[in-house]
Formats: sequence, C-alpha cells, structure tokens
Amino acid sequence: MKSIFLPLLLMLVYYHVAAQDPARQIRKIYDDALIKGRSYETLQYLTQEIGSRLSGSEGAAKAVDYTQQIMRKYGFDTVYLQPVMVPHWVRGAKETGKMVDLVSGESRELSVTALGNSVGTGSGGIQGQLIEVQRLSQLDSLGRENIEGKIVFFNRPMNPKFIQTFKAYGAANDQRVWGPSRAAKYGAIGSINRSLTLRMDDVPHTGTLVYDKSLPQIPAMAISTQGAEILSQALHENKNLNFYMESFCKMLADAPSYNVIGELKGSEKPEEIIVVGGHLDSWDVGQGAHDDGAGCVQSIEVLRIFKALGYQPKRTIRAVMYMNEENGSRGGREYARVAKEKGEKHIAALESDSGGFAPMGFDVNGSGVSLEKIKSWGPWFAPYDIRKFVMGHGGSDVNHLKEQGTVIMGLMPESQRYFDYHHSTSDTFDKVNKRELEQGAAAMATLIYLIDQFGI
Amino acid sequence: MKSIFLPLLLMLVYYHVAAQDPARQIRKIYDDALIKGRSYETLQYLTQEIGSRLSGSEGAAKAVDYTQQIMRKYGFDTVYLQPVMVPHWVRGAKETGKMVDLVSGESRELSVTALGNSVGTGSGGIQGQLIEVQRLSQLDSLGRENIEGKIVFFNRPMNPKFIQTFKAYGAANDQRVWGPSRAAKYGAIGSINRSLTLRMDDVPHTGTLVYDKSLPQIPAMAISTQGAEILSQALHENKNLNFYMESFCKMLADAPSYNVIGELKGSEKPEEIIVVGGHLDSWDVGQGAHDDGAGCVQSIEVLRIFKALGYQPKRTIRAVMYMNEENGSRGGREYARVAKEKGEKHIAALESDSGGFAPMGFDVNGSGVSLEKIKSWGPWFAPYDIRKFVMGHGGSDVNHLKEQGTVIMGLMPESQRYFDYHHSTSDTFDKVNKRELEQGAAAMATLIYLIDQFGI
Repeated sequence: MKSIFLPLLLMLVYYHVAAQDPARQIRKIYDDALIKGRSYETLQYLTQEIGSRLSGSEGAAKAVDYTQQIMRKYGFDTVYLQPVMVPHWVRGAKETGKMVDLVSGESRELSVTALGNSVGTGSGGIQGQLIEVQRLSQLDSLGRENIEGKIVFFNRPMNPKFIQTFKAYGAANDQRVWGPSRAAKYGAIGSINRSLTLRMDDVPHTGTLVYDKSLPQIPAMAISTQGAEILSQALHENKNLNFYMESFCKMLADAPSYNVIGELKGSEKPEEIIVVGGHLDSWDVGQGAHDDGAGCVQSIEVLRIFKALGYQPKRTIRAVMYMNEENGSRGGREYARVAKEKGEKHIAALESDSGGFAPMGFDVNGSGVSLEKIKSWGPWFAPYDIRKFVMGHGGSDVNHLKEQGTVIMGLMPESQRYFDYHHSTSDTFDKVNKRELEQGAAAMATLIYLIDQFGI
Repeated sequence: MKSIFLPLLLMLVYYHVAAQDPARQIRKIYDDALIKGRSYETLQYLTQEIGSRLSGSEGAAKAVDYTQQIMRKYGFDTVYLQPVMVPHWVRGAKETGKMVDLVSGESRELSVTALGNSVGTGSGGIQGQLIEVQRLSQLDSLGRENIEGKIVFFNRPMNPKFIQTFKAYGAANDQRVWGPSRAAKYGAIGSINRSLTLRMDDVPHTGTLVYDKSLPQIPAMAISTQGAEILSQALHENKNLNFYMESFCKMLADAPSYNVIGELKGSEKPEEIIVVGGHLDSWDVGQGAHDDGAGCVQSIEVLRIFKALGYQPKRTIRAVMYMNEENGSRGGREYARVAKEKGEKHIAALESDSGGFAPMGFDVNGSGVSLEKIKSWGPWFAPYDIRKFVMGHGGSDVNHLKEQGTVIMGLMPESQRYFDYHHSTSDTFDKVNKRELEQGAAAMATLIYLIDQFGI
C-alpha cells in the first residue's frame, strides 16, 4: 500500500502547496497595503502640498522631483527621469461667462471654466447669440447660415442609463474634444460646453479640446450642469439670448518635462518588462487627487510592497509616472517610442487612471487569450472582492505600447463618483478614501505578481 | 424541409424571447431607477427635513407619518401601520469626557458620546482611574482587585485586514455591546469604548450596549479613534491617569411606535409574501442617512418602480420600514410574531441595512439551495456590476422571519466607507451618492422581481 500511496500523497501535498502559495503571497500583499501602506500619505503630499500639476507648470516639476525622491527613498533598483517636451497651456488670471438679454440689458453670470488647450478671448471678451445643439451632426444640418458669428452651446448630458460612468463619458465627450473646431468650421466665434458629469451642481469641469489646425481656433469654455440648465431654459424663453465670455488662457511654447520611472530588476527574465503606471500631470483646477494622483501613488506602492515583502520579481517591474496625459499624451508616446528604440520587451502594462475608488476588477485592451488567463486567476482575487474581468480601454498612457504586442490592462474601480470630481475644483484629497486607495494598490500588486509568476 | 425547420425555428424563437424577457424587464427597472428615481429626494426629506429618528423620538414619529404618506401617494395597494412598543432612550443635554492628571491637576477634554441605552452619570459626573484592555477576557484575568472602582477603557481597534468592513465590525463590537456589563461584573464604575470605525478622526461613534440585568448598570461612552490614541498614550506615560465622565442620558418608559408597511397584492399567489425592508429608526446623532434611511427609501423605491413599470407581481410584495433596529429590534420581532400569528407565508425577505453605497451583490442567511438559485441569475445581474453572491448575515430585522423558513437575504453594497459614518454625526445626506443609492434600489428590485417570477 505504502508504495502506491506515498508518491500520490507527496504529489497531492506538492500541488496543494503550489496552489496555496499565491494565495498566501496575495494575503501578504493586502496586509502590507492595509496596515503599512504609504499610498495615502504620499497622495496627501502630492495633492495638498504640491497641488495641481498641469504639464509645464511648477506643480508638475515639483511632482517629478517628489515622486523621484520617494522611489529613491524606498530603494528601488533604478530610478530615473525620461525627458519629454510637453505642451504648456496656462489658464490666465480670470474667466467669466454670462448670459445677456439684449432687450432688457440684464445679464447673469454663470459658472464657467475654459477648456484645456483653448485660446482665450483676451481683454474685452466676445459676445454673440447662442445656439444650442445636442449632437455634432446638428452643426452640419444647421450650416453656416445658422451658426456664423454665434456661440455654439453643446448641451447633451451624459446618459445616466450607463452603469459604468466611463461609458457615459465616452459617449458624450465628442462635444468637448471636437465640438469647438466643428463649430468653427461653420463660422462660430465661441463654444460653451455642458460639463461632463452626471451630477447636478454648480462646478464646471474642464478637459482637453483638440483644434483642427485647418480651422480658426475659437475660445471654448465648460459650464456647470446647473448653469447649462439655466442657460438652456433662458434660451428656450428668448431665442435671441446672447452669451458673453472672457478668458485669458493661452498655449505657450512647449516646455521640458519628464516621465518618472522606478524599477525593480527581474531575477530570472530581466529583459521582460512589466509596467504599472499612472499619469503625474493633472488639470490646473483642483488637486488631481483621483485623476490621477491616485494612480501614481498606487503604482509606486506596488513596487514598495514587493520590496517590503522581500519579493524578488522574476521579471523587471517598472512604475511609470507618465507626464502630459491630460492635454497631449506626450509622456505615453515618448515612453513607447524609447522602448521601441531600445528594443525593450514589454510583456504587460497596467494603468490606474480611473480614480482611487474601491477596485472591482481589470479590463484588457488586447487579446481575449490574455483576458482568459487573468480570468483564470479569479479565485485568487475573489476574497478581495475583485470579480470583474472584461475587454476594455486599458489606459491612455500604456495603450501606446500596444503596437509592440504588450498586453494592456486597466484597473477598474467602482465608477459612480469619478465624474463628480473629474477635471474640476472638486478633485481634492478629501474625496479619496484611504482603504479604497490601498485596496486598489493591493489589487494592482496582485495582478502584477501573478503575471510575474505565471506570465501572460 | 419546411416541416422540420419551422417548429424548430419557433421553438428557438420562443426560448430566445423567454430568456430575453427578464433581461429587458431588468433593464427597464434600472432605467426607471436611474432616470425617474425618487429614492434620493425621499432620502433628502427623511434626513435633512426630519433628521435623526431614534425610537420613541419626535423624528421617528415624523418618519412614520412621512413614509406612510409617500407610499399612499405612490398608490400602493395597501399601506398600514403595525403598532409596536419600543424602548425610549434619551441622550440628555450634555456629555463630557476628559482625562485628568491627579499630580499636575491638568485635564484635557476628549471627544465622547454616550453609548445607546447607557445610564447617565448625572450631575457632577464620575471620576476614576483608567484601565485599558483589548479583550473582554482580559477582565476575567485582571479580576476585581484590578478593576473595582475604576473606569475600563476598551481599546481594541477594528482590524484593517478584513476586506469587508462588516467583518471587522463584527470582530470588534463585543467590546461595545457586552463590555460595560462585563466590566461592571468586577466592580468598574464606568466604561470608555474606542469608536468602531476604521477611520482615524475625532468623531465619536455611538451604538447600542446591552446590560446584563443581574449586574449594576454603569455609564458607558464611546471616544473618537484619535481620542482613544491620545488616551492610550497618556495612560502609557501615567499609570495613575484618571478619567472624568459626565452624561445625562437615561432610559424612559417604553413608547408606542410603528412598523410602516406598504404592499402590492400578488395576482397569482397573493398568499406568498416577499418582504423588502430597512429600518426607519436611527441613532440620535447625525441624520441616519446610510444607516438606514437609505435602506428604507430603497425598499419603497422597489415597489414604486414596479408600479411605474406597470409590473403586476405574481406574489405579494411588501416594503417594510422596521422600527427600533438600533436599540432593541422590537420592530423586527413584532413583524415576525404577527406574521406567525396570522399564519402568513413569507417566502423571502430582503433587507438593505449596509448603506446606500454601490451595490456589489447579496448575501443569503439560510440554505445553500437558495444561494445557488440566486447565483444562477448571475448573468442577469452582471451587466449592472452585481457579481457577489455569498452566504452571510441577511439583515437584523428580517432575520426574525428565519424560523418560519423564509429565505433571508441582504443587499451587499461596497463597504469601505460605511463605518466612517456609522452611528455618528457624520452619517448625513451629503455622504450619499445619488447613483449609488439608485443602483442599490434597482438591484433590490431586480432580485425581488426574479424571485417573484421564478420562486426561490
């Protein structure tokens, strides 16, 4: 009997131990993140001491220094800066928007903020009749005869039916990104955009526009959702309603900046690189806490946890703080360009740029095979309430690696609150829950650990 | 050929339509909740206009009237009050806690609040030497010689390693519920309890204690987590540190109150009842927004959605606002007693009492068979990010129905923020996200709809 059972028993024990080992390691990852975690205090410094970090700003430069210092302090194997030239847009001192009734002469100020990359009106502002549209295609139907000399008011709300708010955002942000140039095509002199949030409040949300270089650049502003409702109602009652806008924003010459990179060298396959990252820049309003201070401190935290646990990765793990995701994506592009130039082999890249909320899962922008592999790790994630594994966007910065065959992934936190704060003065440190942030970092560390152990 | 394919085709079409129907109905439920939902404004009135609703208080009486009115306004088939006598505890005008250094004569006030059901110290307060413990069993080891005449300081923190915060709460609240009497057993004159929250701040959290009737009742207070840290450190430096506490809380005679019940009559099996509920009472501090205004308005919302969609349930669906969950559970007990007396057949009961946060799933307190049936509906829930189906607690109020074989279920929202607010002045309407609340209601309506359609 013994000769039959002993090898069988040993084999069972072996498989049991092998299967248990990742579970134990993952438990250690979570314990470290939740008990000795540093992501929250790092985020506090980044947001409350440094503050907003728009590309080319003093805040961005300070954030480059600070995150570099933190990663050196943690003793990562290599910490370095990757130079990249970035757009340098500045908001200027003041911005004003008001609706004007030409008949009564009355006007009412509404909460506005210039869209990122917008030209300003300059002193004296501009004023014109308003025309409200819900879809870009309406501009084509309305044509130059109805648009020329006017200010176009893009007022299609984000659709509350979407459960994942990012889908609602994706289905509405054509108005902000392409709207101003599409309006300019028909002679509009300015653009007012309903803020991209599902919340009804008086906080305007900025965000990038992209000008068509073949067309005149017209000033563009976001208006709060409450302001948009007021404006739409007033326009309904008075077809000749005017809007006055004044702004002093402008695009300066490109400025030097950096991606900030920290690395743990792989022990077995150092040439295989796994990236975990977020973007260090933020809009100039607010503190860039959820977007994307959270993703940066979580990425650093992944490597810190590995060091703290004495985990020696097989592959090379890099934390990358990308610069300029918000208004140019220069950092993401430059990182991918250099990687290609050096012939670096990135097997996987994970981005956290959906806020520091409770993590629900991951999306994969790439092959279904990789997704199936990640799904097969589901039982290791389930005790931590990570249950969602789907095809999806990945991340704006890491997506640039896709062409070299890298598996692109994104952290998916619970999304209901993200656009309440996104690109506005509301995106501040106090909106971040410590444990939600920490669990996001732990979930990311878990995924990176599993990829490091088992490949992808 | 035709004679073979046509029946096959018809059969396929039939199964396709049958399978699609719940998916379409669920989509309608979510659309109604997210676009025409009323739960948020109902909660706003309940919390900001009425406010806290401790059993026996004016707020509780107003809440009984208000929720009854709302359900009548919605035109539910039957709306009625179920009388129940409830404990009537009042906090009194003032409560004070301070640590006192007898040598220097210096004292420092710390943030405290009396535990619910506690006796007060009365004017002049009480003062005694402090003794800190982490576990109830330490009291048995310390014995009367170390405890008599002193104030026991229960300071075991909630364990941050738990992912689900309710488990951390469950593993720590013995100190609050049983601690004071356990200390009194050895002659303690008072009890100070570290607040049950994972957050480090200066807000004390109340909650019920249960006195052992065979022992003297001693005054008990919760101290904020920051206060607990200060106190513990001071005690470490000065073993003779005293604590002074003054409170004027007391238990009055039982007061008349009500469970509030609204019903949609079943069309096919009216004798089979499905309950969906929350508890209408709250602690007197804060506004009882997450605990449990959210659960009440969500329960009403389930029936409102069914009415709005013209959905005629097969079974009888009841929304029940239970009274006195917080400090006596009289409402839950009375509802179950009456149900038994009347011979009512409750097939299932769902409670929402874990906050109005983004819903993740449901737990089942009962048979694994019921859980498997709910799990089999997983594909209908997945598009709405509902993926967690586990055995668990159910709900404090609905659990009283368990003995009649009712399937007991609880909504499981994301739990990280719940104890930041729980039983404190922080549990206010502004902490509730509209879409998270609405999606909770829609998830509950979906589960009730599926049980109504397919049984459990």
